[in-house]
Amino acid sequence: MTQVSIVPVGGLPEVEPGADLAGLLLAAMERLRLRLSETDVVVVTQKVVSKAEGRVVRLDTVTPGSEAKRLAGETGFEPGHVEVILGESVRIVRVAPRVLITETRQGFVCANAGVDRSNTGGAAQAVLLPVDPDASAAALRQRLAQATGASVGVLISDSFGRAWREGQVNVAIGAAGVACLSDYRGARDDDGYQLQGTVLATADELAAAAELVMRKLDRVAAAVVRGLDVRGEGNARVLRRDPALDLFR
Amino acid sequence: MTQVSIVPVGGLPEVEPGADLAGLLLAAMERLRLRLSETDVVVVTQKVVSKAEGRVVRLDTVTPGSEAKRLAGETGFEPGHVEVILGESVRIVRVAPRVLITETRQGFVCANAGVDRSNTGGAAQAVLLPVDPDASAAALRQRLAQATGASVGVLISDSFGRAWREGQVNVAIGAAGVACLSDYRGARDDDGYQLQGTVLATADELAAAAELVMRKLDRVAAAVVRGLDVRGEGNARVLRRDPALDLFR
Repeated sequence: MTQVSIVPVGGLPEVEPGADLAGLLLAAMERLRLRLSETDVVVVTQKVVSKAEGRVVRLDTVTPGSEAKRLAGETGFEPGHVEVILGESVRIVRVAPRVLITETRQGFVCANAGVDRSNTGGAAQAVLLPVDPDASAAALRQRLAQATGASVGVLISDSFGRAWREGQVNVAIGAAGVACLSDYRGARDDDGYQLQGTVLATADELAAAAELVMRKLDRVAAAVVRGLDVRGEGNARVLRRDPALDLFR
Repeated sequence: MTQVSIVPVGGLPEVEPGADLAGLLLAAMERLRLRLSETDVVVVTQKVVSKAEGRVVRLDTVTPGSEAKRLAGETGFEPGHVEVILGESVRIVRVAPRVLITETRQGFVCANAGVDRSNTGGAAQAVLLPVDPDASAAALRQRLAQATGASVGVLISDSFGRAWREGQVNVAIGAAGVACLSDYRGARDDDGYQLQGTVLATADELAAAAELVMRKLDRVAAAVVRGLDVRGEGNARVLRRDPALDLFR
């Protein structure tokens, strides 16, 4: 088996609402002399996707309601920030000082509905998750394929906290052209024992690997994972547990 | 920034209790002409560490108690398997058909206390987690450093399920010589905004990256992640959330 490489794609300019993100990524890869091939997976951080899609809110334009004010008191967050988080959420999962975990409109359970206040082009702004990250990934994939001739996989990534473990890890919130889950159920091991319940979240592992070269503050907005063949027609929807099966509501 | 590589270390023989795992890894790397250097991180799958440490139980030697029998009924697992899981656990977190999530003696919250029935050298055996995975990592690190002169980082990895997301991902259950958490709190972004709560679980991302070349059934028991400098004196204990701060008991 050959090795896997993770190549950082740095040097993107500040991404403004309406920016041609595929064009910016292609230009950055051109400068790096990085030529995409069919089995590459391009992992793009949610922040630049959201910015290009105009998912940015100036907090001084937000009027917090009574629920936001109450939760701001419980969490210690700013009321306007909480108002934006509530607007992105369908359900509150946990509230505690400095903690507001919700289920987002997209179906993710994460802190602050994925609403991020850092690196936004101004301290008083918030960046929201893309409305439909799978669609964002599909659109990027189409543009990259048109320009390069390589139908690469595309993942949109974000850093989520976890239950029971400290620290955030990158996960895939959107996907196109990648088999997001690798199902080993029914396979037999070397001793003929049927493996039970072994389904690996390949897309999340790819996103985590990409984060290693995309550390915060480095302006590395994307990475190419190269050397695997994880092509597939799935989207990142399959990574979200059916709420009916969720034991940690 | 240069790229990161993930190099699979395959070709290990079946690991027996008492085996010299460091020696087996060194021999495999020798065959691959893989020369370790100071900033490499060697990720080793828990299964071979546990086997070498003799953490294997023949299920026909286990007598299930009444609690195990009751939980076997609820889960559909074999009573002997459940008895072994209970012996490794300090607390039951969730029970459902085909689901038994516990807190292990080592402090992990995971399915089946990490007790694995697959690839065990016989269908009627179970492989338990190492008693002290950080100590296992430290011992491996010392042996690798003695043999190669390179004080590499060592991670012991296992695949855990997650709340809210489908599929398992590799995480680090033991570590030596690796900064397991990267703390960006207090850092300022390009706009001078102080980043809040951004702590990345670097060791878990390294473990996830390594899994991409260690897929099930492939007999790839280790991988070397190369091209980052994540040296540090931490252990994997820091990745376990303090139960007092756990919102999902």
